Amino acid sequence: MATRRYAFGRVDEATHPDSMRATLAEFASTFIFVFAGEGTGLALDRIYKDEAFSAGELLSLALAHAFALFAAVSASMHVSGGHVNPAVTFGALIGGRISVVRAIYYWVAQLLGSIVASLLLRLVTNNMRPGGFHVTSGLGAGHGLILEIVMTFGLMYIVYATAIDPKRGSIGAIAPLAIGLVVGANILVGGPFDGACMNPALAFGPSLVGWRWHYHWIYWVGPLIGAAIAAIMYEYIIIPVEPPHTHQPLAPEDY
Amino acid sequence: MATRRYAFGRVDEATHPDSMRATLAEFASTFIFVFAGEGTGLALDRIYKDEAFSAGELLSLALAHAFALFAAVSASMHVSGGHVNPAVTFGALIGGRISVVRAIYYWVAQLLGSIVASLLLRLVTNNMRPGGFHVTSGLGAGHGLILEIVMTFGLMYIVYATAIDPKRGSIGAIAPLAIGLVVGANILVGGPFDGACMNPALAFGPSLVGWRWHYHWIYWVGPLIGAAIAAIMYEYIIIPVEPPHTHQPLAPEDY
Amino acid sequence: MATRRYAFGRVDEATHPDSMRATLAEFASTFIFVFAGEGTGLALDRIYKDEAFSAGELLSLALAHAFALFAAVSASMHVSGGHVNPAVTFGALIGGRISVVRAIYYWVAQLLGSIVASLLLRLVTNNMRPGGFHVTSGLGAGHGLILEIVMTFGLMYIVYATAIDPKRGSIGAIAPLAIGLVVGANILVGGPFDGACMNPALAFGPSLVGWRWHYHWIYWVGPLIGAAIAAIMYEYIIIPVEPPHTHQPLAPEDY
Amino acid sequence: MATRRYAFGRVDEATHPDSMRATLAEFASTFIFVFAGEGTGLALDRIYKDEAFSAGELLSLALAHAFALFAAVSASMHVSGGHVNPAVTFGALIGGRISVVRAIYYWVAQLLGSIVASLLLRLVTNNMRPGGFHVTSGLGAGHGLILEIVMTFGLMYIVYATAIDPKRGSIGAIAPLAIGLVVGANILVGGPFDGACMNPALAFGPSLVGWRWHYHWIYWVGPLIGAAIAAIMYEYIIIPVEPPHTHQPLAPEDY
Repeated sequence: MATRRYAFGRVDEATHPDSMRATLAEFASTFIFVFAGEGTGLALDRIYKDEAFSAGELLSLALAHAFALFAAVSASMHVSGGHVNPAVTFGALIGGRISVVRAIYYWVAQLLGSIVASLLLRLVTNNMRPGGFHVTSGLGAGHGLILEIVMTFGLMYIVYATAIDPKRGSIGAIAPLAIGLVVGANILVGGPFDGACMNPALAFGPSLVGWRWHYHWIYWVGPLIGAAIAAIMYEYIIIPVEPPHTHQPLAPEDY
Repeated sequence: MATRRYAFGRVDEATHPDSMRATLAEFASTFIFVFAGEGTGLALDRIYKDEAFSAGELLSLALAHAFALFAAVSASMHVSGGHVNPAVTFGALIGGRISVVRAIYYWVAQLLGSIVASLLLRLVTNNMRPGGFHVTSGLGAGHGLILEIVMTFGLMYIVYATAIDPKRGSIGAIAPLAIGLVVGANILVGGPFDGACMNPALAFGPSLVGWRWHYHWIYWVGPLIGAAIAAIMYEYIIIPVEPPHTHQPLAPEDY
Repeated sequence: MATRRYAFGRVDEATHPDSMRATLAEFASTFIFVFAGEGTGLALDRIYKDEAFSAGELLSLALAHAFALFAAVSASMHVSGGHVNPAVTFGALIGGRISVVRAIYYWVAQLLGSIVASLLLRLVTNNMRPGGFHVTSGLGAGHGLILEIVMTFGLMYIVYATAIDPKRGSIGAIAPLAIGLVVGANILVGGPFDGACMNPALAFGPSLVGWRWHYHWIYWVGPLIGAAIAAIMYEYIIIPVEPPHTHQPLAPEDY
Repeated sequence: MATRRYAFGRVDEATHPDSMRATLAEFASTFIFVFAGEGTGLALDRIYKDEAFSAGELLSLALAHAFALFAAVSASMHVSGGHVNPAVTFGALIGGRISVVRAIYYWVAQLLGSIVASLLLRLVTNNMRPGGFHVTSGLGAGHGLILEIVMTFGLMYIVYATAIDPKRGSIGAIAPLAIGLVVGANILVGGPFDGACMNPALAFGPSLVGWRWHYHWIYWVGPLIGAAIAAIMYEYIIIPVEPPHTHQPLAPEDY
């Protein structure tokens, strides 16, 4: 593990062209994902001005996030590893699959992508205010926090098993779809309770541009904890012994 | 066949690290699946307190189960064979594709995953009571039983043809998707009649945590019978002669 | 072409084990598909006894057919070529990709699979009468016929391009999904106009068990014409010169 | 780059059989896509004569376009590169991935496919008038234009990353699905605001056959600008150095 960490913590990584390209890919993919996900929320607000939340709206939100995340991860998998989510980057860091330098680059790119998407949504919708995530009435912040931990655990477990595990085999080809669709499934569960974020970048851009910060911490703390638990469990228990020299797990070309 | 059975019935299997990892993978994948599937039922209960069942709700349930099962099977395919369902494990046992020891491990892991998911759902929803499966009014237990047999036959047939058959070829790469989506399709049929379970673990956790046992036996007996019929039909009629020495069907690395 | 036709028209094909297995696979896959497709229609009838057709119902029907067909084609692709539809078998026959003997076997198996599925649906729903396909009020039989021709042309074109074309390359791995989802898309178009059948077997079983024959001929003539046009166009114009000796297009192992 | 451009700008390309087949494939695939996409709009008009737009209708439109585009791109990927969209062809031209001659062929084929689909829709629906795209009340043409630019940027970025990038690796096998589903996600965002076209051919056929030209320019200018931006960004920044001699990116066999 030490060797791997060293390889990615090398001082020239910050300026290496591959790092720059990977960072740009994270920016573009997160932009595409947040534009579709948050934008669908605004689109539904436009259709239904005053009505209660319905199954049709829940499905629309789930499919918009699932489909856009699948496409965004597909597009960046071979360039950056296809994180598109600061919590996933955190999990990869905890598991020793990415260096601290690269993680910081990714986080900045992901947050910028989300901010630009939110600004453009405000522009094209003639100034509709992006909605932030919040916990529904009847539940407390603690319920929302645990829900985010559990759902992001599920997401990160799927990421680790299908996109990072060196023994994943041919399942790697459909990893982006598994990642996108588990997020869709979790939105169908968590949507009516706490919005089902699982991704601090998805929360941050709309919160900043719509200036809604109540409960915002939940959507950082929960996903980071959930991703860390899954990464530790998968990296140190499920992956037993890596086949030596057959994989360089972090090199984008290997995805 | 005897050789294969022997290979997996060997006495050291119970403590072999691969068995432990596979069992843990079944636990985690079943947890992710049941959390999303049963959780979506609770989410819809929250949105619609008193209303009649609608197509939008049926679709939400079908897609939540389909997407989560696809992701869960993808994540465990290369580790445990991706059963995530005691009936599928039973079918694999009937077909001689898994040892009794391993099957028992998987069953325990699947049921535990479902129980933990149900407990966490009760926690994050501020104590909503999980719903069990039941047969709708106007139909008897016999109708529900036959429906579960037929639907689980379909599921197990798809599992055998796309994930177990040594001649499946490149279709194996999308086996988890075929498995997830046939469950989604069957829920659209069976949902309004008997809930469309096809998976004893999916029934057991919520029944235990919500303490609802009426009709519960249907969701064990039906799936086990349906899976056994499909396994016998596929293993002994459709798979004719296995190409010798090119596959070790049960080794997780081959998936 | 002559050689290929001969190879599959040989006298021993009728009793060859591969033919038997392929025929059984067509039976099982068509059974799974029709059970989910027709069954979802009955499930929606149960939920909405008197109401008008809605987008939610249209979506449920489209996804049930799409998901089940995808799974059914995945499961039979490597055994029988994954037709699951007498019109697709007819197109493959017109294009010289299957012998007359094998086509007849497939047709019988597909019709039997549909009949058994329809009978079981009648049983598990406590005798609900399967609905046949019909043309909506305001349109004539001619409109329905052209619509079936156009939609089945689209389906058969996708089948030829993704599952039969020897030059299809890696796209073959997702052929079953393309086939399933184009049917789903076409149901969203044609559903409110003529039911969007594209498959004589899907029409035949429910018509027989529900004894509804008005308009039934449309759902044979339309799909057969549409599939034939697509097969001729693809086989003789789009496929130019086959790479010699690299493919034996009809052998199930090559799928 | 010069070599590549030359290779595809050669004078005999206009009459080469491969160009003819690719052009025919673009015609057929665009026909299938527009028939399903525009046809679903007409189907929903038939179900809901006077009612307001709902989430169920939005979902139906999104899935019809997504599923049909996925199938259409799958079917043409290995023959023509799977554009099915004049804006995608324009992006490929800007990035130097296709010659001017071939681009003109594709454009003509795509527009003809859309016109024939629209005419047949008018025929089978007993003369329903196809709807064109328009910007919703409360927004101006500028909002619609920027929205089309942003959404088509996302689409073209996904196309470039998953279907054109020579380093894309195994993700190429699911490129058509990523392309189809990102369009579905964007329709969920943009549908209620400007119809979410992203494809001049999808706008042109229905506009011509339904004779609705107001706002029509937006659905040419927006997609072409968005696709050009994505192509320039991906081709000249994200793709750094192409591995020499390992790929002939435009040859259909390589897809």
